[in-house]
Amino acid sequence: MATSIERTEQGGPTRGARPATGRAVPVGMQTYTFERLPLQRGGDFGPITLAYETWGALNAEGDNAILITHALTGSAHAHDVERPDDPKAAWWNPLIGPGRPFDTSRYFVICSNILGGCYGSTGPSSLDPATGRPYGMRFPLITIRDMVDAQRVLLDHLGVRSLAMVAGGSIGGQQALEWAVRYPDMVRKAAVVAATAALTAQAIAFSEVQRQAIMADPRWQGGDYAPGEGPRAGLAIARMLAMITYQSEESMELRFTRNRNPERFTRAPSPGNVPDLGERFDVENYLYYQGELLVRRFDANSYLYISRAMDLYDVSEGYPSLEAALSRIRSKVLFVGIRSDFLFPAARVRWLAEQVRSLGGDATYVELDSPHGHDAFLKEWEQMTAALNF
Amino acid sequence: MATSIERTEQGGPTRGARPATGRAVPVGMQTYTFERLPLQRGGDFGPITLAYETWGALNAEGDNAILITHALTGSAHAHDVERPDDPKAAWWNPLIGPGRPFDTSRYFVICSNILGGCYGSTGPSSLDPATGRPYGMRFPLITIRDMVDAQRVLLDHLGVRSLAMVAGGSIGGQQALEWAVRYPDMVRKAAVVAATAALTAQAIAFSEVQRQAIMADPRWQGGDYAPGEGPRAGLAIARMLAMITYQSEESMELRFTRNRNPERFTRAPSPGNVPDLGERFDVENYLYYQGELLVRRFDANSYLYISRAMDLYDVSEGYPSLEAALSRIRSKVLFVGIRSDFLFPAARVRWLAEQVRSLGGDATYVELDSPHGHDAFLKEWEQMTAALNF
Repeated sequence: MATSIERTEQGGPTRGARPATGRAVPVGMQTYTFERLPLQRGGDFGPITLAYETWGALNAEGDNAILITHALTGSAHAHDVERPDDPKAAWWNPLIGPGRPFDTSRYFVICSNILGGCYGSTGPSSLDPATGRPYGMRFPLITIRDMVDAQRVLLDHLGVRSLAMVAGGSIGGQQALEWAVRYPDMVRKAAVVAATAALTAQAIAFSEVQRQAIMADPRWQGGDYAPGEGPRAGLAIARMLAMITYQSEESMELRFTRNRNPERFTRAPSPGNVPDLGERFDVENYLYYQGELLVRRFDANSYLYISRAMDLYDVSEGYPSLEAALSRIRSKVLFVGIRSDFLFPAARVRWLAEQVRSLGGDATYVELDSPHGHDAFLKEWEQMTAALNF
Repeated sequence: MATSIERTEQGGPTRGARPATGRAVPVGMQTYTFERLPLQRGGDFGPITLAYETWGALNAEGDNAILITHALTGSAHAHDVERPDDPKAAWWNPLIGPGRPFDTSRYFVICSNILGGCYGSTGPSSLDPATGRPYGMRFPLITIRDMVDAQRVLLDHLGVRSLAMVAGGSIGGQQALEWAVRYPDMVRKAAVVAATAALTAQAIAFSEVQRQAIMADPRWQGGDYAPGEGPRAGLAIARMLAMITYQSEESMELRFTRNRNPERFTRAPSPGNVPDLGERFDVENYLYYQGELLVRRFDANSYLYISRAMDLYDVSEGYPSLEAALSRIRSKVLFVGIRSDFLFPAARVRWLAEQVRSLGGDATYVELDSPHGHDAFLKEWEQMTAALNF
């Protein structure tokens, strides 16, 4: 596979580069650009830039690397060396560093922004060199496999010969699973967190409502909006819904119940003079706030493409059967389910682990006992640390 | 309470009236108009017209009446005498008729369109007599209690002195519960189906995402849209989300899994040239279709007001405590939960039944063993028939 991918050194690692989206770039971020990538759904695409960060050092054998794969709205900034003890400074911060599960004193830890993203990697908000304008919806349909193949090119560039581990949650978990199936000889351990073989109909349905909310916003303009003038309301509404699916009835009840605090007031996403229809529940203020935060930091078209890649993902695609796909796995695989997750239900994660085991694979299943729903993989640091010791 | 409600006979029962919304009126529909109603959140409102249907005959004592209360997008048409065996001809058709749980050979069965609705009763799409224009968002904030109080006026008008039963599911279940608490001496049995003492934070959150989708649609225009020119995309998106919450992971998996049928194509709600991003899943076509169906038959502002009444409902409102509210109940109460319901979780329905029982009330809890989620109360006819024999 790797031989079929042409690449150049153009762009190369650049410190402090500013991506097309104009967002601030973390200090340690580098980029690598290669010429083209054959895509799963057909055609080639390029050039492709991947933004990435690394922590620790690669050994001479090139076999002590750990690849961390991020979720829908994540970035390469999984760890923050300047604030290693602040869980909010980077998305898997407490799991990365000396003595932590992703031990930077022993491993070369890599995280790259996914293909299709908006944190420095090529995505719909990148400028199409052919036109000088953002790709918008002219960006090709990309899949989880394409994201993995792009990561593979980056790893080759960095001199990584094999992965001690690949680990990720949600869409990152889909990537970790895809790595174990697609490049079995390159992966020694895979941690597939809060991810399944393929999404349920219900999860696809939630996803599509979010995309419709974005595309129904007149400011979306078929994807051809100017930077900062995109579908703010639509993206905020999509995020509001997504946040519900990342949590659980239990956690929202613990946090909000039916509390109302008239002192707090966050602007609702809908433009214009929107009435409150009685009092405002705290959970509503919270969702408005989360919607606004995402609007400030994420590109709506990236949201469409990446959420669609999540829906389309089916680990068996291109193989005669699910069994055929799973029996390719050579690595030790940890599957982590979350008791209260309804987007990637624990029962389906456990079932997947059992399938791998029944095919002779070395699969372990661990369930996080958490009320926090899907997001528990970004919150339950102690349980995650314990689980990752496999 | 009833004495504080002024009413007139104006409007009176009228057969074949056409409501302001211009929708076709079922043959048996009648209307009753009264002058004003004091509202729970303050102020009086009127005139109020209620559209209703009745089946069977009221006895001389006026005590053989059964009131059926409908859900969010329902109407007075709970039963269809011309097609009594077609479950799709009316929303609780299989439960109503001679020998059925709501036995029209013994009982006088009544169903009225709720205050705030758009099937003949006064709601946001009705013309404000003061301006000659639809109320739109100038319609007052209404509550489940207001709906019940309006029904009470209608029952007085019809000569009903007491109810042999009040029964409803979802928002209709909230109304049935409110009847049992507010007018304990008038109710002998109450069937509270798929409803709880108050919505969870998660359910409020789902509800608010739906309302934001409606209000973010530029065609909503602050609620002042011309008939037929309302927020089609916003309302369709709201309905798409609602349909997910009315079903369950299990039922959607049974029905759709990840099936794709390229032959089927339903237009997505988002206007303009919206790309499909790869193939179309059947569950997406289904949701688009359901969205379109609701757009054709329902008023967006009614949707806002009624869904908000659902969120705001808390049976304890106006009483010192939940116990104080529930201990007012004198009727036999059947609580029906649904195993797979995540909008009104079965555990919370059961808990409510236990609360009533612990306060000395005559409460029974029955759980529908159904994969169909919240909507099971509109599908599981055999189990519903068995449960209603209490």
